[in-house]
Amino acid sequence: MELPSKLLENAVNEISQLPGIGKRTALRLALHLLRQPGSQTSMLSQALEKMRNEIQYCNECHNISDAEICKICESPTRDASIICVVEDVRDVMAIEGTGSFKGVYHVLGGKINPIEGIGPSQLNISTLVSKVKERDITEIIFALSSTMEGDTTNFYIYKQLKDYPVLTSTIARGIAIGDELEYADEVTLGRSLMHRIPFEQSIRQV
Amino acid sequence: MELPSKLLENAVNEISQLPGIGKRTALRLALHLLRQPGSQTSMLSQALEKMRNEIQYCNECHNISDAEICKICESPTRDASIICVVEDVRDVMAIEGTGSFKGVYHVLGGKINPIEGIGPSQLNISTLVSKVKERDITEIIFALSSTMEGDTTNFYIYKQLKDYPVLTSTIARGIAIGDELEYADEVTLGRSLMHRIPFEQSIRQV
Repeated sequence: MELPSKLLENAVNEISQLPGIGKRTALRLALHLLRQPGSQTSMLSQALEKMRNEIQYCNECHNISDAEICKICESPTRDASIICVVEDVRDVMAIEGTGSFKGVYHVLGGKINPIEGIGPSQLNISTLVSKVKERDITEIIFALSSTMEGDTTNFYIYKQLKDYPVLTSTIARGIAIGDELEYADEVTLGRSLMHRIPFEQSIRQV
Repeated sequence: MELPSKLLENAVNEISQLPGIGKRTALRLALHLLRQPGSQTSMLSQALEKMRNEIQYCNECHNISDAEICKICESPTRDASIICVVEDVRDVMAIEGTGSFKGVYHVLGGKINPIEGIGPSQLNISTLVSKVKERDITEIIFALSSTMEGDTTNFYIYKQLKDYPVLTSTIARGIAIGDELEYADEVTLGRSLMHRIPFEQSIRQV
């Protein structure tokens, strides 16, 4: 794809560095910005730079925050002895959306992934271990995605914590509500049978 | 979707102004930039600002260019008496990719679209009419997409040009090479029958 301008080519190359955006989409976005008033481009680029340079992370849970301690960690109504371990801010938002978790979070900032060169030292794991060591933590809930990387990360943290008197659990894997059994994969279906729950308990939760 | 930081929220709002990018994708892109070195974000935002502020358009054909006259208009091997009218730079790139057009282009910068408030005065139509009036132009080829807006634009320009001794043509509409007849829409199939070409001519072109 030969572009008629170096400026355009440069912009297209930078946009296509973003995940899931190829050269064609990048060109479409660049041409869109050229058609819009210049203020839109400057607002976009300023918002990006400002976010990248000034963003803060909560000192407690490493979630993105506008203050040193985030609103969740600061709240007196949350139970700081139950920590839910998640990958990033999107997972915090998803769990908060359910309205059913009253503990606090610990954001790892990724998952162990040797192929992409992400090891335990690049994740917020040591601060989680210190919390368990120093404070009165009763339960650690692993809420990572059920992938090879998620399971590896869970297991790595589990090993670090197993000498301390803390309960570790993972979120339940099973058939999603509204899903048809015949389309479920075998591992999920097998596990949902193995970890079946008393019927009275399931109707009380509805 | 409640975000934990105003800076992040601002960036997500700006990113999601881009066409085809919703709030969720915008959040994914913003979090990606936060995970990458700060240099990536500054290179992206600088490339966008530089493109938006410094881009030039060819004085002849209105295509994006790094100089006052673009490489195509400047080339002595191109026939400046045949002008192909297109919507934007992507169409120029697509036609150049075929290697079969040796005339020059005229980039309109859009199509007439009353619903989006785009009228003839916002497009590069008057300069095309002046060219036909003042120079020795033999043919104008309309190569806009075959949509309501494309057809409207073609017809508007055709009316402006009909008093001048210039041939106007449109690119052929028909069954795409490799396409199956049964999936073609009726209008396309009907037109491709109406505008059939002698068989000897078709095999000479292969």
